[in-house]
Amino acid sequence: MTEAAARDWLDANEPALRDRLYDFVRLPSVSTDPAYAEGMGQAAEFLSTYLRDIGFDRVAVNATPGHPILTGEWTGAPGAPTILVYGHYDVQPPDPLDQWQSAPFEPTLRDGRIYGRGISDDKGPLMVALGAMEALMATTGALPVNVRLLIEGSEEMGSAHLEDFVVAHQDLVTADFLLSADGAMWRADLPSVTVASRGMAALNVTVRGAAKDLHSGRYGGGVPNAAQVLVEMLAALHDPRTGAVAVPGFYDGVAVPDNETRAALADIPFDEAAFLEGLGVKKGAGEAGYSFLERNWLRPTLEINGMSAGYTGPGFKTVIGATAEAKISCRLVPGQDPMRILELLEAELTRLCPDCATLSIARKPGVAWPSALPLDHPGLRLAMDVLEELYGQPARAVRMGATIPIAEMFDRVLDMGTVFFSFSTADEDYHAPNEFFRLERWQDGLRAWVAYLTRLAKAA
Amino acid sequence: MTEAAARDWLDANEPALRDRLYDFVRLPSVSTDPAYAEGMGQAAEFLSTYLRDIGFDRVAVNATPGHPILTGEWTGAPGAPTILVYGHYDVQPPDPLDQWQSAPFEPTLRDGRIYGRGISDDKGPLMVALGAMEALMATTGALPVNVRLLIEGSEEMGSAHLEDFVVAHQDLVTADFLLSADGAMWRADLPSVTVASRGMAALNVTVRGAAKDLHSGRYGGGVPNAAQVLVEMLAALHDPRTGAVAVPGFYDGVAVPDNETRAALADIPFDEAAFLEGLGVKKGAGEAGYSFLERNWLRPTLEINGMSAGYTGPGFKTVIGATAEAKISCRLVPGQDPMRILELLEAELTRLCPDCATLSIARKPGVAWPSALPLDHPGLRLAMDVLEELYGQPARAVRMGATIPIAEMFDRVLDMGTVFFSFSTADEDYHAPNEFFRLERWQDGLRAWVAYLTRLAKAA
Repeated sequence: MTEAAARDWLDANEPALRDRLYDFVRLPSVSTDPAYAEGMGQAAEFLSTYLRDIGFDRVAVNATPGHPILTGEWTGAPGAPTILVYGHYDVQPPDPLDQWQSAPFEPTLRDGRIYGRGISDDKGPLMVALGAMEALMATTGALPVNVRLLIEGSEEMGSAHLEDFVVAHQDLVTADFLLSADGAMWRADLPSVTVASRGMAALNVTVRGAAKDLHSGRYGGGVPNAAQVLVEMLAALHDPRTGAVAVPGFYDGVAVPDNETRAALADIPFDEAAFLEGLGVKKGAGEAGYSFLERNWLRPTLEINGMSAGYTGPGFKTVIGATAEAKISCRLVPGQDPMRILELLEAELTRLCPDCATLSIARKPGVAWPSALPLDHPGLRLAMDVLEELYGQPARAVRMGATIPIAEMFDRVLDMGTVFFSFSTADEDYHAPNEFFRLERWQDGLRAWVAYLTRLAKAA
Repeated sequence: MTEAAARDWLDANEPALRDRLYDFVRLPSVSTDPAYAEGMGQAAEFLSTYLRDIGFDRVAVNATPGHPILTGEWTGAPGAPTILVYGHYDVQPPDPLDQWQSAPFEPTLRDGRIYGRGISDDKGPLMVALGAMEALMATTGALPVNVRLLIEGSEEMGSAHLEDFVVAHQDLVTADFLLSADGAMWRADLPSVTVASRGMAALNVTVRGAAKDLHSGRYGGGVPNAAQVLVEMLAALHDPRTGAVAVPGFYDGVAVPDNETRAALADIPFDEAAFLEGLGVKKGAGEAGYSFLERNWLRPTLEINGMSAGYTGPGFKTVIGATAEAKISCRLVPGQDPMRILELLEAELTRLCPDCATLSIARKPGVAWPSALPLDHPGLRLAMDVLEELYGQPARAVRMGATIPIAEMFDRVLDMGTVFFSFSTADEDYHAPNEFFRLERWQDGLRAWVAYLTRLAKAA
């Protein structure tokens, strides 16, 4: 049996796979800082060699205006499904260095956790996926399904050139769905798969009263105060009784969560009070009648992300600022079109701005669409089954309040669903000092990916 | 006749007085910059010598923790009124130097305007007062009334030590009223005397939602957004229908302007539309049912002077800021107690702050009381009579929307009224490059001060 043989191979070879992971982590592939250019080159070279060693064909280090994107494929299973496996080889900068307990680019095992920059995001989870495929190739000379690889080097820079690459090289990425080695699991105590993310649209509002700042004594009371105008406009964007967004049309197309969905969320073990307390929050806030998870996962929002007006330095200055500015973003759920939301918001701001002030609006370049995988997607069902078997408890379909760029982009550009099958966890301090990856999750992940690929072939 | 003789003397000696003014302006007495310490010393020395030359007694350069305060007196008119003449010998810094058309400390006459730093604020108007007294002393050997002098050197620094000095040396400042050579006339085309100023009380409000900034996707919708809480609180401080302040008790004790007061204001030639247009304001704003002058002179206000929350830099950052902050100041009119207003405002902010947020308030140190001179004050009536005779049109009693620290302080500390009798004008670019003093106003002022002092003796 393919899966059993590969598992035996893993049991024997896990230490060697782990050594390879450590070698990979030692290469300082920080994409955002040109000082690490050598580390980026080494990491791309390391990976492409490894991919060829495993047995992938057409392995290529594709130049882009940013860092190279690695591709490769194994298509020796005609009739079987084809998946696109996604990961990234770049990591966050290691600063602040003095807060690391061991050197960021020297992987160190302590108390069941392997510490190192990028080991959780995304080098560990990526090597989980590749290690599982190595095990399958080593034991059977083949993979159970067709696999294409897309491993980028600019994820920590916002994947700037990935969309252009995907659009230009669809032959390299064509697949039934995307299986992502990136994207952390929500919690260590709960097996879960992320199935949806919210979209985003944002804009900057500027209100002008007078041509220049005016003295609040000599003019105050009789001239428009841009800050006052702005707070009145912003306050009017929510219904004070319900906390709902009060922009006309904002909820058009948004489904009220049905009882089944709400029950599934309520069934997820989640201590809302402890969670909020951990954030230093006295009391939850938001749309009345919903739990935190419902508000964050199922409902769209309008948030003020920044605001400035008049004098903001130390002490006081009795000035009436000529302008006041706010940055506003909306998180969107299925049924909402980000461009339409921007139009509605702009229309409402225009309506709310009084005659005494001048309004100008600048959209944040780029929007993100909400994205959701149907709960009956076969790749998703399989992921949940594998997790349930591994952990002895049902896996949960969870959502993200934030945008997940890779899922949003593949959904939008290629109409391709993304199944997240990463074994890192959201608490592993990625983007922070002392990033770590749980040793047990590394081992779990190797077995889970072997199981997933094997059973995907059978399910087809 | 005393007045006629002094006027003849002025006609003959105005060029010499002007030369002395120029010498005074040449001394760079910038109080805020220690680099000008020598100029400050020279100006104090120049003035004390001049005061003795005129014939003042007990001339003293009184040390303070800041710059010295000059005092002196002439009390040879028993039974006649005693006035305290106020002025200051310090000036604003001359920066930006490259915007001056002639050197700031080299007085230059161009087109009927004498340019120089401090010539309008307050060296010119101060030398008007002193020149008139020199004329009276030179022609009659005496002054018509008793005069005390209080000439400070820290006015441009906020008169930090003046109140302490006045309290500690009441014998040096005791008088029937204060006659100020400082404080510009409102407009060049309208003889006016300033009779009232608004008080001020201010505070800083900080609202906290969570313990730290949170990602607006991962948390947005379910945690308090401090910026949102703040805008709702700030918006609720005004009645949206009337533009009136909605803090309970705010207007307690404030008289609704009577018809006579409103008619007097309406009678002042003032093109509100042109004034607002000059400020770049599309339309006036404020309490409904009032003109600009009524709003600014007669009505109290609550203004947001500054506001900041979340991310305020370039571009966007999808953050929910942990805190949001606003600076709020109130301008107050007679009937309002600044300390009581702070209490009311704090109580209302506390009431408005929702359970999900934490409020903290810091009062601006120091408040100012509203101040107003009764319209039948003899010193005021006389000033208006002298102006009417000089300019051939009725002088107007005007008010200030801002606080006038000297009037507020003498009113509060010594219950002494202040009559402003300055011949500078508010448009003379004091505190800015190319400050000037109108030559004609210099000459008008000398005659007016002679008339004022002479007639004050007769009126008594």
